[in-house]
Amino acid sequence: MNFCPPTSVNGQRLPTIDDVREAAQRIKGKTTVTPLLEAPLLNERLGARLLVKPECLQKTGSFKYRGATNSIACLNDGQRKKGVVAFSSGNHAQGVAAAAREADIPAVIIMPKDAPAIKIANTRAYGAEVILYDRYSEDREEIGIRISEERGSTLIKPYDALPTIAGQGTIGLEIADQCRDLGVTPSKVLIPCGGGGLVAGTALALNSEMPNAAVYAVEPEDFDDTARSLKSGTREGNAPSARSYCDALLSPMPGEMTFPINQQLLAGGLSVSDEDVAHAMKVAFNDLKVVVEPGGSVALAALLSGKVDIQGETVVAVLSGGNVDSELYRRILAE
Amino acid sequence: MNFCPPTSVNGQRLPTIDDVREAAQRIKGKTTVTPLLEAPLLNERLGARLLVKPECLQKTGSFKYRGATNSIACLNDGQRKKGVVAFSSGNHAQGVAAAAREADIPAVIIMPKDAPAIKIANTRAYGAEVILYDRYSEDREEIGIRISEERGSTLIKPYDALPTIAGQGTIGLEIADQCRDLGVTPSKVLIPCGGGGLVAGTALALNSEMPNAAVYAVEPEDFDDTARSLKSGTREGNAPSARSYCDALLSPMPGEMTFPINQQLLAGGLSVSDEDVAHAMKVAFNDLKVVVEPGGSVALAALLSGKVDIQGETVVAVLSGGNVDSELYRRILAE
Repeated sequence: MNFCPPTSVNGQRLPTIDDVREAAQRIKGKTTVTPLLEAPLLNERLGARLLVKPECLQKTGSFKYRGATNSIACLNDGQRKKGVVAFSSGNHAQGVAAAAREADIPAVIIMPKDAPAIKIANTRAYGAEVILYDRYSEDREEIGIRISEERGSTLIKPYDALPTIAGQGTIGLEIADQCRDLGVTPSKVLIPCGGGGLVAGTALALNSEMPNAAVYAVEPEDFDDTARSLKSGTREGNAPSARSYCDALLSPMPGEMTFPINQQLLAGGLSVSDEDVAHAMKVAFNDLKVVVEPGGSVALAALLSGKVDIQGETVVAVLSGGNVDSELYRRILAE
Repeated sequence: MNFCPPTSVNGQRLPTIDDVREAAQRIKGKTTVTPLLEAPLLNERLGARLLVKPECLQKTGSFKYRGATNSIACLNDGQRKKGVVAFSSGNHAQGVAAAAREADIPAVIIMPKDAPAIKIANTRAYGAEVILYDRYSEDREEIGIRISEERGSTLIKPYDALPTIAGQGTIGLEIADQCRDLGVTPSKVLIPCGGGGLVAGTALALNSEMPNAAVYAVEPEDFDDTARSLKSGTREGNAPSARSYCDALLSPMPGEMTFPINQQLLAGGLSVSDEDVAHAMKVAFNDLKVVVEPGGSVALAALLSGKVDIQGETVVAVLSGGNVDSELYRRILAE
């Protein structure tokens, strides 16, 4: 590749594989090492060997606990006293709230008022102060920066920050370790993508540990900003009118830090419909026995709906989260 | 303890910790190493640290795949050619069918006709020949022995056999390893109990690896034969009229091989109501993001309903299976 990747953006250094390795040391014992699952009947139906990394089983029900734990572990004593602030559609909220509680520091979380009830309730249960905003008329980043300035607290960004990306990337190190234990080398790894932090971090790890695996970002159809941006070579946004029930993946455009990493390391972007997502959630229930939320199932959905050829291959799909209200879950199982 | 345990029953040698260790070597790489999960909010509500071993994530959706894989790995070439036969309410059926398919040998499975549709369908999907019988008027063991004699195939018993018990016991070795990695020593380990094979094997491993952990068998209220037998010192049966929706745990009485092991190694037996079970299934959905079937959730149910004191302790609960029809699952989530 004759593309020379940047090492910093707007004066902020981009994470490298060394940052991911340091994050892994930092969060060791604090986060759950999620397994690689597989289901013989599902493999037969797919004509491939599918290994699933269920981050819905991570503490707080999503991968976000990794980045949050790493970010908080990086704070100095003065910063710890003033606490942290985060804006999030829900999973990052719970991750930061729980990691802050675990580290015994205060947390303020800014959440959209239409986030799933379970995510708002859990964030409060972790002891965080929750401030609700309107996803379509207010700017959560602006609110976050204002509170951070007023209180002197540290803003823990959901994806566009080095310690966040490095923390999420520990998933890639685990996938590589677990594939080595199984004696397999996957040809493709599919990862759910919102702002791109999970994908960027995991791709950094996989590029170093399993450089022959093609890594794909998977998004909801109307929020395929990363797929379009990878094609055009510049950060593209989503239509303000776009809607999806993948509430975890409704980011407006690729991050300014995550995109250059993804541009360098990804094989491409895939997108799936709400129907593909519902089917994948049912397969996760029936074949894998894991509860996955809509946004968490997009990578599995892309495989099941044939968005990429996997015949005879060994592939990995990350299930990024499982925080779904039981009412929606029951409706999807009934469909 | 001045109780001298038997080393064999009816001429059959009882398994020891060495058999469990050999089973672990035999099934390595064929079975999934399930993780130990925990949920911070659940810990806070319990006032304890709860580590959950989710065997619902095992291949075929239950721990039975371990015993089946070990049993089949013990067959000689002549036995392999003639195949295996098993009787089961469903999870052992799927375990044996899938392990037979994996080893490329034929399997006949005898299942009660009121077993959950998903268990019957999956057993057939693994390529096994399925024979249905009436749970309340026919003797499955008799049918199994007859088919075994007619075809010369090997009967893989669901619990009363050395390789089955040893295979299930590998869960105990994993629990001990994973607790060591976390630097914790649990005070209590709760395990779902039907015929007692999972409990007996796991207790053998734990007694050797973590001798201070008190191991409890947990059963549905009307199928508390092991609890009553442990108290009376002799194998007690259940009322023929007893019913429970814990279809995986409807054994008539403790096994003749499993009971002497459990009598020697268990701290006691606990029992839970169908309501306790439904609540535990919802907690597994909300807090742990794992799909658990009724019978698979009894150990968690016993902890959540306060059947044993765990304040300030670190405890382990095994979730033994997740093969539940989506209709029943939706109904339970809605309650």
